[in-house]
Amino acid sequence: MVDALDNNPPHQVVIVGGGFGGLYAAKALAKAKVEVTLIDKRNFHLFQPLLYQVATGTLSPADISSPLRAVLSKSKNTKVLLGEVNDIDPEAQQVVMGDEKIPYDTLIVATGAKHSYFGKDNWEEYAPGLKTVEDAIEMRRRIFTAFEAAEKEKDPAKRRAWLTFLIVGGGPTGVELAGAIAELAYQTLKQDFRNIDTKEAQVILLEGLDRVLPPFAPELSQVAQASLQDLGVDVKTKTLVTNIENDIVTFKQGDEVKEIASKTVLWAAGVQASPMGKVLAQRTGAECDRAGRVIVEPDLSIKGHNNIFVVGDLAHFSHQNGKPLPGVAPVAKQEGEYVATLIQKRQQGQTLPAFKYTDYGSLAMIGQNAAVVDLGFIKLKGFFAWLFWLVIHIYFLIEFDNKLVVTIQWAWNYLTRNRGARLITGQEAAAGVKNVNNSSHYQPKENRLTVNV
Amino acid sequence: MVDALDNNPPHQVVIVGGGFGGLYAAKALAKAKVEVTLIDKRNFHLFQPLLYQVATGTLSPADISSPLRAVLSKSKNTKVLLGEVNDIDPEAQQVVMGDEKIPYDTLIVATGAKHSYFGKDNWEEYAPGLKTVEDAIEMRRRIFTAFEAAEKEKDPAKRRAWLTFLIVGGGPTGVELAGAIAELAYQTLKQDFRNIDTKEAQVILLEGLDRVLPPFAPELSQVAQASLQDLGVDVKTKTLVTNIENDIVTFKQGDEVKEIASKTVLWAAGVQASPMGKVLAQRTGAECDRAGRVIVEPDLSIKGHNNIFVVGDLAHFSHQNGKPLPGVAPVAKQEGEYVATLIQKRQQGQTLPAFKYTDYGSLAMIGQNAAVVDLGFIKLKGFFAWLFWLVIHIYFLIEFDNKLVVTIQWAWNYLTRNRGARLITGQEAAAGVKNVNNSSHYQPKENRLTVNV
Repeated sequence: MVDALDNNPPHQVVIVGGGFGGLYAAKALAKAKVEVTLIDKRNFHLFQPLLYQVATGTLSPADISSPLRAVLSKSKNTKVLLGEVNDIDPEAQQVVMGDEKIPYDTLIVATGAKHSYFGKDNWEEYAPGLKTVEDAIEMRRRIFTAFEAAEKEKDPAKRRAWLTFLIVGGGPTGVELAGAIAELAYQTLKQDFRNIDTKEAQVILLEGLDRVLPPFAPELSQVAQASLQDLGVDVKTKTLVTNIENDIVTFKQGDEVKEIASKTVLWAAGVQASPMGKVLAQRTGAECDRAGRVIVEPDLSIKGHNNIFVVGDLAHFSHQNGKPLPGVAPVAKQEGEYVATLIQKRQQGQTLPAFKYTDYGSLAMIGQNAAVVDLGFIKLKGFFAWLFWLVIHIYFLIEFDNKLVVTIQWAWNYLTRNRGARLITGQEAAAGVKNVNNSSHYQPKENRLTVNV
Repeated sequence: MVDALDNNPPHQVVIVGGGFGGLYAAKALAKAKVEVTLIDKRNFHLFQPLLYQVATGTLSPADISSPLRAVLSKSKNTKVLLGEVNDIDPEAQQVVMGDEKIPYDTLIVATGAKHSYFGKDNWEEYAPGLKTVEDAIEMRRRIFTAFEAAEKEKDPAKRRAWLTFLIVGGGPTGVELAGAIAELAYQTLKQDFRNIDTKEAQVILLEGLDRVLPPFAPELSQVAQASLQDLGVDVKTKTLVTNIENDIVTFKQGDEVKEIASKTVLWAAGVQASPMGKVLAQRTGAECDRAGRVIVEPDLSIKGHNNIFVVGDLAHFSHQNGKPLPGVAPVAKQEGEYVATLIQKRQQGQTLPAFKYTDYGSLAMIGQNAAVVDLGFIKLKGFFAWLFWLVIHIYFLIEFDNKLVVTIQWAWNYLTRNRGARLITGQEAAAGVKNVNNSSHYQPKENRLTVNV
């Protein structure tokens, strides 16, 4: 299936998805003797690790996004297509995009994951997740509208529900959201309201396991939990959410079943592969795991289809230590680059040893001067971890585009504790605020976003 | 109706609208012996003169917005309310916000204007205007989606329609939009596409009068027109649009009737007072002009209601030279400040001479190194005008919040000719791009925004 030395016509590589996996594959192929087509539903690459800062009013979407065309404009062998791939045909070696069919010699599928409610899809309406720019703007709208509604509310019980922020899931996203909302309520907004004291807000983080940040070393989980508590976050571990409905969250803590009324429930608990996983399974016979991820071979290809690769959050790769690699940016990046190298090796009639992920460590931001960093050989906490977090994120942002703006914004926020990007926007916000006092949630179900690239 | 020296209970000033008029009135009352309630539908003040830069992908909405609560957090006598005023009761001295009634001693109405289609409201669907953040995001989506659609389009006629950008109205907004889109097509994007040459795009500016920028001196209008033409804009003056439908714009140039097919028609032609003008007319008997603006007394109050003031774009003030003052930020700002001073004078049993607008001049950006500035005593063009434009805008932005970020962003864009904020976002963008190739417009009528503060 793979042409070895035949350079005429050029080898066609089609990449579906412009996240970390797909984009780094494309970048690594910039000088290869192939023609690359990168297809994405969106016209920009999103730096998802900072999306929580858009949701909490520190950054603007454009600060953490790079137009795919701009990133790849100098890769003359690369074409960017805006579109949605809905099928693939491995026999004809084509991907299907509506009426259009795009032929490939090698296909890289990197459509990522979306958040998952473990089958309880009706929870989404009350507890939005955080995967897209629109998700972040929606979270931002809910968070800042909650303070506005509380300011107007006269009934103390309802006011309390407006001032209760409940984050489900104690992974990095949940921890970062909880820390940022606590800083908002207890620092940034404390002088801005007249009828409410924002310091009375409750920020509650629920985690099913026995500690936050389960991928980190246990001592860093403890540091993170203590830092969150210092900021005022109520951290509840070993706590399983059993229902979310009408702004009431029901959860089990040990044997006890409890309820909390919260108008702002944010979901950071689980993800599930994008629908392309199912398509691949149907068309290639590939196996998927329970989360819908495609189980890949040691070289990231699909069994029996050595010219179809799956990288990033959509891939289930467990050849390294039996456990699947986590769905984080560095894994996707390394996988994309591996496949790009493998394609070039194959053109020379060679191959590569199995993919091997190099784990440089994990890091999570908790708040001003507080973060945790686990590099394996060294563990950092507090101010130095915080500084390290900043430097690393700026470094990776700059790879795409000069995001000097983010640095300045952070420096300014640090000095003033202000957050400039706390706009309540979107069509509903624009259409008026009549529903601020409405006891129900804001967004009708049919308006919800279903994005998966 | 106005209490003179009675400070107990405090004099209640209610301001409706947080644009330039309302916000500067509130700021000027920060230390007055009054209690101020500022009501706006949005939680932020928008620096509208830069909105075209959001629409064309240079800036993010948050860069030109300041949370009203943050701007006024130190004004301890000032309360911000998020809400929509739908009625006023001058007898009971109350404004009505849904079920809520808010009493006032003095009322300042500053709800501004929205764009107007001179009775042809069906044009809005094809030719969106630019008043709100959502409008700007919608324009941005249309502009960048047009290039994406052209890249995919195989039919040359349709491709041409996608690459034709038609701006209706040659005032400052129209000129700035046309210049920015020309720079996008001919500079920023020229390396980004593979199937189309963005330099083949047409940018057409239509103006009904005999020159662009009618409020400026004729020689600057000529300079502006020449600069636009240098950038590649096709400027058509003395041209009246007679119909906009199904992506076809029909216009009369002299006696000739012509048609142009354009998928991206942008409206910068006319404004009309917000609905609050009608409410005021009904409740107070105030007279309105043809654009719906409330005709005010020399002290900006409504005839027969000396405790109700109208400022900014909603006010028709023609006591200075017979012509109504233009709907620009400096007029609104000075009117707001005048009323704030008058309220304080009245508390001391004094009054003020009639309002007098001090015109410091007009300025408009055309493109990189090209702007026109008319200060009356001096006229600037080219690089110096451009630099002056930048400094003035940064100066006024900084009054609200340190918008260092904007400076950096501009510096970066200047050096790289890049535009980072060219994301195609919004619910429809998120839901996929299936409609990119659709021959019709994008946004169903019922989704359109109707905002007027």
